[in-house]
Amino acid sequence: MHRVVFVYLCISVCLCVTASAQKATWIWYPGDFEINLANKMQNRRTDRNTFFPPFWKMDAHYVLMDFHKVFDLTAPEEITVYAEGTFNLKLDGNAVESGINKLIVPAGKHKINVKVWNEASAPAIFVQGKTIVSDNTWLVTFEDKEWIDESGKTSDISATKWLNAGSWNFNDPTQLPSAFKLPTKKLTAVTTTKKNNEWLVDFGKETFGFVQLHGIKGSGKINLYYGESKEEALSVTDAMTLDRLTFTKNVQTDSTMILSKAFRYVNIVCDGNISIDSASMLYEYADVKQRGSFTCSDTLINKIYDVSKYTLELNTREFFIDGIKRDRWVWSGDALQSYLMNYYSYFDNPTVTRTMMALRGKDPVTAHINTILDYTFYWFISVYDYYLYTGDKKFIEQFYPRMQSMMDYCLSRRNKNGLMEGLSGDWTFIDWAAGLSKKGEISFEQMLFARSLETMSLCADIANDKTNASEYKKLAADIKEKVFSLYWNQQKNALVHSRVDGRQTENVTRYANMFGIFFNYFTDEQKLAVKQHVLLNDSIQKITTPYMRFYELEALCAMGEQSYVLKEMKSYWGGMLNLGATSFWEEYNPDKKGAEHLAMYGRKFGKSLCHAWGASPIYLLGKYYLGVSPTRPGYEAYTIQPQLGGLQWMQGKVPTPNGDIEVYCSTKQIKIKSATGTGTLKIKSKTKPTGKDIIVNATGGDSYEITILPGVEYVVNYKVF
Amino acid sequence: MHRVVFVYLCISVCLCVTASAQKATWIWYPGDFEINLANKMQNRRTDRNTFFPPFWKMDAHYVLMDFHKVFDLTAPEEITVYAEGTFNLKLDGNAVESGINKLIVPAGKHKINVKVWNEASAPAIFVQGKTIVSDNTWLVTFEDKEWIDESGKTSDISATKWLNAGSWNFNDPTQLPSAFKLPTKKLTAVTTTKKNNEWLVDFGKETFGFVQLHGIKGSGKINLYYGESKEEALSVTDAMTLDRLTFTKNVQTDSTMILSKAFRYVNIVCDGNISIDSASMLYEYADVKQRGSFTCSDTLINKIYDVSKYTLELNTREFFIDGIKRDRWVWSGDALQSYLMNYYSYFDNPTVTRTMMALRGKDPVTAHINTILDYTFYWFISVYDYYLYTGDKKFIEQFYPRMQSMMDYCLSRRNKNGLMEGLSGDWTFIDWAAGLSKKGEISFEQMLFARSLETMSLCADIANDKTNASEYKKLAADIKEKVFSLYWNQQKNALVHSRVDGRQTENVTRYANMFGIFFNYFTDEQKLAVKQHVLLNDSIQKITTPYMRFYELEALCAMGEQSYVLKEMKSYWGGMLNLGATSFWEEYNPDKKGAEHLAMYGRKFGKSLCHAWGASPIYLLGKYYLGVSPTRPGYEAYTIQPQLGGLQWMQGKVPTPNGDIEVYCSTKQIKIKSATGTGTLKIKSKTKPTGKDIIVNATGGDSYEITILPGVEYVVNYKVF
Repeated sequence: MHRVVFVYLCISVCLCVTASAQKATWIWYPGDFEINLANKMQNRRTDRNTFFPPFWKMDAHYVLMDFHKVFDLTAPEEITVYAEGTFNLKLDGNAVESGINKLIVPAGKHKINVKVWNEASAPAIFVQGKTIVSDNTWLVTFEDKEWIDESGKTSDISATKWLNAGSWNFNDPTQLPSAFKLPTKKLTAVTTTKKNNEWLVDFGKETFGFVQLHGIKGSGKINLYYGESKEEALSVTDAMTLDRLTFTKNVQTDSTMILSKAFRYVNIVCDGNISIDSASMLYEYADVKQRGSFTCSDTLINKIYDVSKYTLELNTREFFIDGIKRDRWVWSGDALQSYLMNYYSYFDNPTVTRTMMALRGKDPVTAHINTILDYTFYWFISVYDYYLYTGDKKFIEQFYPRMQSMMDYCLSRRNKNGLMEGLSGDWTFIDWAAGLSKKGEISFEQMLFARSLETMSLCADIANDKTNASEYKKLAADIKEKVFSLYWNQQKNALVHSRVDGRQTENVTRYANMFGIFFNYFTDEQKLAVKQHVLLNDSIQKITTPYMRFYELEALCAMGEQSYVLKEMKSYWGGMLNLGATSFWEEYNPDKKGAEHLAMYGRKFGKSLCHAWGASPIYLLGKYYLGVSPTRPGYEAYTIQPQLGGLQWMQGKVPTPNGDIEVYCSTKQIKIKSATGTGTLKIKSKTKPTGKDIIVNATGGDSYEITILPGVEYVVNYKVF
Repeated sequence: MHRVVFVYLCISVCLCVTASAQKATWIWYPGDFEINLANKMQNRRTDRNTFFPPFWKMDAHYVLMDFHKVFDLTAPEEITVYAEGTFNLKLDGNAVESGINKLIVPAGKHKINVKVWNEASAPAIFVQGKTIVSDNTWLVTFEDKEWIDESGKTSDISATKWLNAGSWNFNDPTQLPSAFKLPTKKLTAVTTTKKNNEWLVDFGKETFGFVQLHGIKGSGKINLYYGESKEEALSVTDAMTLDRLTFTKNVQTDSTMILSKAFRYVNIVCDGNISIDSASMLYEYADVKQRGSFTCSDTLINKIYDVSKYTLELNTREFFIDGIKRDRWVWSGDALQSYLMNYYSYFDNPTVTRTMMALRGKDPVTAHINTILDYTFYWFISVYDYYLYTGDKKFIEQFYPRMQSMMDYCLSRRNKNGLMEGLSGDWTFIDWAAGLSKKGEISFEQMLFARSLETMSLCADIANDKTNASEYKKLAADIKEKVFSLYWNQQKNALVHSRVDGRQTENVTRYANMFGIFFNYFTDEQKLAVKQHVLLNDSIQKITTPYMRFYELEALCAMGEQSYVLKEMKSYWGGMLNLGATSFWEEYNPDKKGAEHLAMYGRKFGKSLCHAWGASPIYLLGKYYLGVSPTRPGYEAYTIQPQLGGLQWMQGKVPTPNGDIEVYCSTKQIKIKSATGTGTLKIKSKTKPTGKDIIVNATGGDSYEITILPGVEYVVNYKVF
């Protein structure tokens, strides 16, 4: 068997560009570098020195990749090609001999193809010429089927899926994507306490990185026990992470641990005729820029905001992870919250898309994301949020097929009533809450399902799949209708938790009810009823994870309860600070005492004391106090509804794709400066607001709207209620 | 986010065994080692020193794998675990610290899990204890979802697909599957002709391996031009493969080429102040045993059989490949024929299943196998053949899901008439034949489609998928019915080639008509009509590839035309031998002259002179002359219908899963000795056959049947017609 000699033709889908001087960057199939990196990161978890990999399918990159682009040159130029993998380079379909990575491209219109094979990591290329450079305008495919049959007919190019290449910031040929590592910087210990052959090192606050031992002398064993708390570090039997070094011969050396760990304390125990001089660390961090800010008249809130930012910083790594001590995995429900916090802090799109791509993985779909029903839905919702905040249509267009196959998987698992119910192998999570029932058809899951279908409809539209756009819309409306017809209980003034055997259960939980508010699924009347009978009702089971407190407080903020939420924030997050927290926790139950706070999952130090979902004040303060949120994708339009919630003043910045929105607000004056889009400042004021060059629009009662345009500094005088 | 602490439980699907002393072997997820190896092999193709990868999707292994087995020990024993990848080892759910690969397993019933992560090659393990060993009774999964939720409930194990591990013959911990290489042996040149700075080396016949240069002295460049013919080796501009060495400094050394090549001749051209003493080679071969044999009274047939065997030997490598010079890829249509030849020579199941697994790859299916419509169908048919010859149910059970998704792909691509027609991106191949129309609905493709559906029905039954078994059966019957209602032309006494725009075309080709015979789709009357009006009709376009001659001659043999076929064989394959062939070719057209025989695909030396599909006499002589073929899976029952076809005598062996069937046949006597199953010797004889201990059953006319049982030597005296 042999295929006929093939030639590459320039065809309609090829992007023909007039070249201009540009910077080359490494490129790959979008999602593949990300999948490799996620595999590496998630397989670095250890549990008491045991390798602890994820318990779901991990995907692999495509091993054979074709990259191409058509250039139109005014003058000949030489290009140099670098590749991760075995490659061939073609100019207008003619291949260059192996071992040669330079080529003169003549003037005129020419197509360059680079085909790369790599089993160990994603095929990637770096092409450098004067005007010809590799970047994300190149097209890639993993199933090039261009060929000419014996009749000379070219097969239809549409059979091959070409996507725009993925890239990040690998802008030098020597900077291989497969060798990516987060940067580190040296940090010293705050105190070191030596007792016999043990050194207890305190870095002063929660941190993350590689411990370094200096001046190791002698022979024997050194065991390092890490602790987010002092108790954990001092517990040889229960510390969740540890390292062991063995020196069989006499040494005089330094040593850096191979794996990064989360800790504040390290207990270094020398066993044998061995000792150390000191310990320090290499702090490992993601190189993202902090753009958002918030300060206000309340010092505790300022402290909460700062510790939230530090908590998010520690959990923002190659991906948005859950917590730095234990899992260090990418969990969809956790990530969704980090994305939202990110929109009010870094606004770093690559970390968001990288995390979403890693979570979604590849077809075929064989399980829910992280095996969790709700986590699949959060993934869809996170795409919705991403589009709203960033306006990045390209991502949707490229990943719509993977959204579709994920939704097909969900649709194929509906029960006979068309509802989503955990099937064999599915994990219905919702929240860590004692006794929470996962039986039957749970209202919360249907609500997330409806929102996911709405996302699909939106994205189908963007991907120009009009038929499915309307199909998803219908499905979403149907599920939404069912949420109310099946779960709304007029007596209870709430959605009930679930149906079992086709009948409503008696149980009311907060989950579906709080999401119904900020999804805007409830009528105004229902919102008020739910606020009173569920959210502010102490007889409804309380939430003890910052994870669900995020949504609970969001729902209350969406109902204008900023004063109440501010108090809650001070009490809940302030409660952790009172207990000495230097980062926010996975779970906090104010009723617990002492070392009880450290335990979880039946393990003495099982709880993570630095969990991304603990950092939600970043989001709440940005979105519901400074009050900035997009109303059209990418902040083309947005609202600013400052709410002091009892503060005397506050000020801060909210990042957008095209610069920041700066807000200052006191009880008398609001100052706004925006770099982007068309904003609408919405305020309530006892008197009509005034200010230079401001057009105030009264919208009824004491409500006013003022249009905010980019580049202007607005000063609005008003009188707070 | 964090999962609850999980424990492994012994559950129903776990295989509980009473251990007995066994040999350990490396194990992996079935198909994954094979996919890695196929990627490596197929990416070794070069075209004039340019890397030439396949032009379809290449798959990757699963990167994270869980292996387990439950053992019941009478005494404690120590096990040692080796892994390709980062691993953790668990005893009854409790993990051992990283870096430790030994464990004492106590007496009693215990579950051992090894979870391995490896991005570069398939995760694999080797476990050695006294009675505990890794082998293909271990179970593997790539999506272990065992966990216990907070209510303490174990999720249903059935959500996770557990398969039996794959293995081959890596029986030593140091013999890593990822490092697999075919063995080599040293061969010397037959003649070396030196002319100025050129050495023309002749190895006497077609061969394959790594050329070695001895006594390289000086500095400069050495170019090696390989030739299956002398003309090719001497053509610096057109030899299909070449190697280049550069020595910038003075050397005195030997050198072995990095990539294996196909050649009989090597032209070594020294450029600069450099020379060599001599050249030899490392012959690279698959370590399979030749079990089948055939000799007869005709020396030309014996020569044809021997050269066929050598041709197949050269093309039997890590996989059954197409040809050794050029593609060196795994092509489904080519492979099917090699499998059939294999059943009459090596009977090596691992090479068959490895090739089938490599061809099928992974889900999702995004294209036909090798992008060719007919090649997808051949893949199904090859599974059918494999089961018939080997009786290997396990393979079917394990791979049925991949068969299903491949068939789903086909079913989703039927046209409005329910027929298969090449769609955008599909290659409709059929054969290399000038002017062969690929337009519209081609009868040949429908016939292969029907047979594929029959295979699916059979395999669904084996996999206990009764619903689909009957569904596939119905679909097969429907397509088969359509083949006759839509394509049979009573005037032409044949199936026409195709329908275009819903109407029969005038064209009759041999393809569907010859397959209809040995698929047994025709009535006896139709068979005779087709034989006369198509097969033996010179006005129907002739076949010029051994590829389709295979089926043409098979159809004639199935019609009892052994005498005619013997003459054809001597003329066609004998024709190649007359032209000096030392292996059989990709194409042979007796009308061509001289160097015309070397050209193909518009290239002077484009033709492969050693192509697996050229070796079909192995199959024809075994199946239709010795006449041995299984009638129930794995030779549980089989027939022997010796047909001399004009020979004075013949004898040979046909391998089966449980030993050989030996046949001797002259015009007067037949001798049979079989190691397996229940055979039925079917003969025509002018007089009633006689022999010691033989029960002869007259079946009408001059036909007789004699039952053959294992271990008995039968001598039957008869009188040939």
